[in-house]
Amino acid sequence: METFFRYNWMVREQWYAWCEDLPLEELLRPRTGGVGSILKTFFHIIDVEWSWLQILQGKPDGAEDFEHYKSLEAVRQFDRKLRPDVEAFVLAWDTSMEKRAHIDHLSNGKVVIDSWGEVMRHVIAHEIHHMGQLSVWARELGKEPVSANVIGKGLIIPD
Amino acid sequence: METFFRYNWMVREQWYAWCEDLPLEELLRPRTGGVGSILKTFFHIIDVEWSWLQILQGKPDGAEDFEHYKSLEAVRQFDRKLRPDVEAFVLAWDTSMEKRAHIDHLSNGKVVIDSWGEVMRHVIAHEIHHMGQLSVWARELGKEPVSANVIGKGLIIPD
Repeated sequence: METFFRYNWMVREQWYAWCEDLPLEELLRPRTGGVGSILKTFFHIIDVEWSWLQILQGKPDGAEDFEHYKSLEAVRQFDRKLRPDVEAFVLAWDTSMEKRAHIDHLSNGKVVIDSWGEVMRHVIAHEIHHMGQLSVWARELGKEPVSANVIGKGLIIPD
Repeated sequence: METFFRYNWMVREQWYAWCEDLPLEELLRPRTGGVGSILKTFFHIIDVEWSWLQILQGKPDGAEDFEHYKSLEAVRQFDRKLRPDVEAFVLAWDTSMEKRAHIDHLSNGKVVIDSWGEVMRHVIAHEIHHMGQLSVWARELGKEPVSANVIGKGLIIPD
């Protein structure tokens, strides 16, 4: 599980560096698909990652508003602020948690039960999916996207 | 590991069903980003998934040509043909394989070493990334994309 989180964090940092070449108006420009802009995509994945892990732990997941994070530096700071909580949970993960039940009482009265293992993979896939969207927007801008490769990043050192 | 493969296969089937509403020319139309068309994306992820797993096992990974698979039904058949090989390897996966070395001798004389665990995650992330691209193309077509949610699919039944 940890490997995929480390992968996402590395790719995310590479995308931040990629964004440095773009003016703020391009980072905020409305685009088709996803959550609608490059910068809002980062805000969204940081928010979703942290919120889901807070929820699993029964901790408050205070909703933040993108209106307060409309610059690359503000988004990076938001990420730095939430990362320790996320990292602590990910590093403490063990396989005995896979089938723990997360019970969600929806506003319509229905009850949804997800396993913790599903939620963790949901968070992982969520970010990869949104990075795929960024890669199309990058090409629309005439720029090469950040590589989505898992290999070549030294994530698991072979024996 | 298996959970993510099952997730990808479920989402892939949902995208195939989604494609049924589109004329073949839309499935083949050149698009910005990724491998350039909806149908070629499926061909590519099926091919990459099977090829990597063949390579790990030291088996031949005969290159196929998309020119022979330019319909939704042909792509589905291609998928059905290769799936048993992929499924057998994924179901036989165990954590002792994580750090096994895959040694790749590149044509430029360089040697690249990846762990099997990295390669498996590479295959998983590869498909999720490309589905993210499809989701943008879907919105450009004015259609709702297939959900990328991992939760809600019954992939891991909670205790």
